This record gives sequence, structure tokens and C-alpha cells, in this order.
Amino acid sequence: MLFNECCEALSKRGVEIDDIVECAEFLHRPYDQIIAKEQIRANIVEILKKREVQNAVLTAIELDMLCEEGRFHNQKFADIVMRDDGLYGVDEVLAYGICNIYGSIALTNFGYIDKIKPGIIKELNRERPGVCNTFLDDIVGAIAASAASRMAHGKED
Amino acid sequence: MLFNECCEALSKRGVEIDDIVECAEFLHRPYDQIIAKEQIRANIVEILKKREVQNAVLTAIELDMLCEEGRFHNQKFADIVMRDDGLYGVDEVLAYGICNIYGSIALTNFGYIDKIKPGIIKELNRERPGVCNTFLDDIVGAIAASAASRMAHGKED
Amino acid sequence: MLFNECCEALSKRGVEIDDIVECAEFLHRPYDQIIAKEQIRANIVEILKKREVQNAVLTAIELDMLCEEGRFHNQKFADIVMRDDGLYGVDEVLAYGICNIYGSIALTNFGYIDKIKPGIIKELNRERPGVCNTFLDDIVGAIAASAASRMAHGKED
Amino acid sequence: MLFNECCEALSKRGVEIDDIVECAEFLHRPYDQIIAKEQIRANIVEILKKREVQNAVLTAIELDMLCEEGRFHNQKFADIVMRDDGLYGVDEVLAYGICNIYGSIALTNFGYIDKIKPGIIKELNRERPGVCNTFLDDIVGAIAASAASRMAHGKED
Repeated sequence: MLFNECCEALSKRGVEIDDIVECAEFLHRPYDQIIAKEQIRANIVEILKKREVQNAVLTAIELDMLCEEGRFHNQKFADIVMRDDGLYGVDEVLAYGICNIYGSIALTNFGYIDKIKPGIIKELNRERPGVCNTFLDDIVGAIAASAASRMAHGKED
Repeated sequence: MLFNECCEALSKRGVEIDDIVECAEFLHRPYDQIIAKEQIRANIVEILKKREVQNAVLTAIELDMLCEEGRFHNQKFADIVMRDDGLYGVDEVLAYGICNIYGSIALTNFGYIDKIKPGIIKELNRERPGVCNTFLDDIVGAIAASAASRMAHGKED
Repeated sequence: MLFNECCEALSKRGVEIDDIVECAEFLHRPYDQIIAKEQIRANIVEILKKREVQNAVLTAIELDMLCEEGRFHNQKFADIVMRDDGLYGVDEVLAYGICNIYGSIALTNFGYIDKIKPGIIKELNRERPGVCNTFLDDIVGAIAASAASRMAHGKED
Repeated sequence: MLFNECCEALSKRGVEIDDIVECAEFLHRPYDQIIAKEQIRANIVEILKKREVQNAVLTAIELDMLCEEGRFHNQKFADIVMRDDGLYGVDEVLAYGICNIYGSIALTNFGYIDKIKPGIIKELNRERPGVCNTFLDDIVGAIAASAASRMAHGKED
């Protein structure tokens, strides 16, 4: 189990679980006026306990860190990743690896949040010299989108 | 080749290629002020010439028509499809079958357009007694999203 | 919940849960000598309790039945579905909608079982005049592949 | 365009285009006795010219190299990637990012070749101390699977 490793790695990269709660709330609140923040948080914790999610989170963060540390072997490719080129889509592919587990609602939620970029996602997208969050912003969006899907299904059941 | 069959089936269900052009323009125009409507149209025609797209379009339209004609064998299930229940996601699964071919930009575009529902997509979503467009609205969204992805890639090349 | 509806529809189309157990065992047994058939069965039941799986199962069976009853509106397209044309891939798209929920092991398992076609899958693939199992064989493969993935993850935990 | 970068990176990691040709031939030959090796090779070259494929190839190779160089920040996670743990599935997620572009036949082909592991794929899977090919073997499988799908579609057209 890499749950603690994920939370620590996210926190070290500037993402607290409460930041993801805020993104999931942005997606789910319009459909559910009464859910408590604590419940949203519990959904996100459940998602972060899934092995496939942990693997995606840790892979994404390694890629961001190794890119900003200049460890990539191909410089032209490193530049593409560093500036999160609009046609570089492997970050979204990793994110779909999370969303797919939570069904089609998670995937549409992801596409929406990826355009609107609420809260921490906008923050992560802000360009700062020497910082690479190319993968992390999509991972955060995918976890929030999956949480909103999980809550939509749970509400009904 | 089922290109003509697709255009005819779409038209019979109230969707002209120009309606899809409008949706694709909604997605792509912010990134490209100078593209002509004719070029957007040409991109959509190329997409409709792909066999996997044709198969998805025709399967979707058969499902909508057979559902509204009361041909489904399981009534409880027919009701779910007829009212496009929020937790019925097979329509999105078919749409992803199209988007996947055009890469990760198509998938995020789809999630966005599925929430905003511009033009014909909103029209198709309007509930009318006895009419089922549960599958068609997602297919139109997927074609528009794929066209926008195709144009984003093409612009760069 | 459409669990009972799924089991009944599968049975009516010639597929018992024990047939799917056999396919899942084919995939999982090489990695686990001691698992009991009852446990494999329990995994399949859990999968059939998932709403997204139920929706895929019932959509697939409606399509097969409506096609073999001659209800499709486009004859040329109906012929393609009826003979399970090698380049018609919407049946696999529906199957991936199930596999995706159970992660990447489910997807590779599906690709493998779809080529080898053990037990009931081969049976369903046998061409018989007037019978259409184009969608059903892939749904059975997807459930078996997902069960094997679920068991692989569970074994480790 | 990163076509040359991809070919060089593949070659440096021990994979020549002819190795991928051999894998694609393994998949496609049973359905096509007369296709020439040169045509299979041309299909693979076309696939390697796709931007999304290039991005997946280069990301995968960076991950393998950085892992075997001990650059990963989380040691427990590095060990999982290094030994290609059966439940680590991000390598397959990257591979699906390629296969999806070539439709559902590519995905089933991938699942099959991933189990059978012909030629270079078996070679890459052979454990050697200090070498990590966790991502590369799946990328090679995905390109071969996509080539076989492309040939199946092309043959019909």
C-alpha cells in the first residue's frame, strides 16, 4: 500500500487533500446541496487507497520532478513536457487511467474540469520558471472527477 | 463504406453536418480566429469517413430509434435509456469509441462540450414525449470534439 | 438495481454464471492453484452488481436480439452486425466499458480471451443461421477478464 | 516532429524497427499470407510518425532509463517499477494511449501479444540486474498491435 507515500508526495508538490476536496465540490455541489465536506473528503481518501490510483499519482509526480530537475535524456522532449505543450497528451492518458476506473461520468467530469481549471488546478497551471506540474494538474483533476462520479453513483444507491 | 448511410441517418434524426460544424467551431474558434467554416466541415467529413466512426453512429441511431419505438425487451431498462438516466453511461462509452481515435484532446473536448451543450446538442437533450436521443447527442459531441482535436493537431503540423 | 434482470437475460441467451466462472478460471488458474470455484463465482456476482456492468450487459443483449429479429432500420448495417464483421468494433467498445472499471489487467485479459475463445465464448461464436451473439460473446469475455483482474488484485491485498 | 528521436531512443534501448515488424507479422500473418515485410514495415513507420505515439514512446523510455539509473525519488515505488510488478499497470495505460488511436482491434491485439510475448517482447521481459524495460515492452507491443489493426483495416478498404 502506497497511500501514505501518495499523500506525502502530493503535499510536497503543493497539493493537500483539501485542495482536491474543493475541486470535487466544484463538480458535485450543483447536484447535491446537502453533502458535507467531510463526505467529499472520505470519497477522495477511498480513491487514493486504490492501487491503480496510487501508481498513477506516483508516476506522475516522478515525471514532473525528474523533468524539472533536468534529468530527462532528450532535451527537445524535455522542453515539450516542461512547457506542457498543448499537443503533449500523455498527462491526460495517465489521468484517464484513473477516471476509467470510476466510469463514464468520471471521464466527462475530467474533460470539464480540465477546461475550467478551478482552484488548485489553475494554481498548478500557472507557469513558474523551473517548475513542472504538467502531470500533476491532470492527476488532481482526475481524482476530483472520479470523486464526483463516485458521489453521483453513491447518492442514487 | 457507410458514409452516405451515416449522413442520411443523422439527417433523418434531425442532425445536419452544419449542426456539427457549429459545435466543433464552438470548441476550436477560441484557439484559431482565421479558420474557415469550410475547413471545419472538411474535418468533420473526414471523421465521418472512418469506419469505426460510422459503426458508432449507426449503432447509436439504431438504439435511439428502437428504444423510442418500444422495441426493447426489458421495460425497466427501456425506461432508463428513454429518460437518459444520469447513471446510464453506455452512450458515453460509445462516444469515447470515437474520441479515442483522435487522441486525448478529443476526450477532454468531449467532457467539456457534454457539460456546456452548445447548439444542436442542447436541442437534442430537450425532452420531448416519445423521442429518444440518448445516444445521438453524445455521438454529435464526440464528432465535434474529434474534429476540434484534429484541427488542433493539424494547425501545428 | 438490474442484477436479476441481467442474470435472467444472460440465461435466456444461453449464458449461465457458471459458464463465465469457467472463462475466468481459464484466465486466473495459472496464477492461483488453490482458489475455489465458489470464490471465482463470488467475484463474478460482485461484478454483475455494478451498475455500469448491468447497463453494458442489457444494452448488448438488446442489440443482439433486435438484430436477429430483423428490427434494425438499415439493412446493410444489420448484415455487418449479424455476421460480426471483423472490422465492426462497437461490441469490443462496449466490452472495454466493463474492463476499464477493473483496470489494465482486465483489458489485457480481455484481449487474450478474445483470441483464445475458451468454453462458452467459442460456443457463442459458432455461426448459427438466424442467431446473433455479436455483442454477447464480448460481454462474457469482459466479465471473465474483469473477474480475473479483481482476483489478481485481491490475492495480493 | 520527433520521429528520428524515437527511432534513435528505441535503438539505444535495443529495439530496431525490424524487431517490431516481427511482432506485427506474428499478429497479422495468420490473416494475410501474401503481405510483404516491407509493407508491414511501412505501416510501423506511419505509426511512429504520429505525435501521440512519439510522445508515448519517449515518455516510456525516459521512465525506464530514469528508473534504472536510480533517479526515482521514492525508493519503494522505484522497486515496484523496476521489477515490473504484476499489479503496476501504468505501463499498460501508456500502451493503450497508442492502441486507442488504432481502434478496438489494436486493443485486443495488444492484450493477446502481451500474454504470448513473441520475439523482442520476450527478450525485453527477461530480467537482467540493473536493467528496466517495464515500459518499453508494452510500447513495442502496442506499436505492433496497432500496425496489425492498421493492416486489417487497410486490407478491407
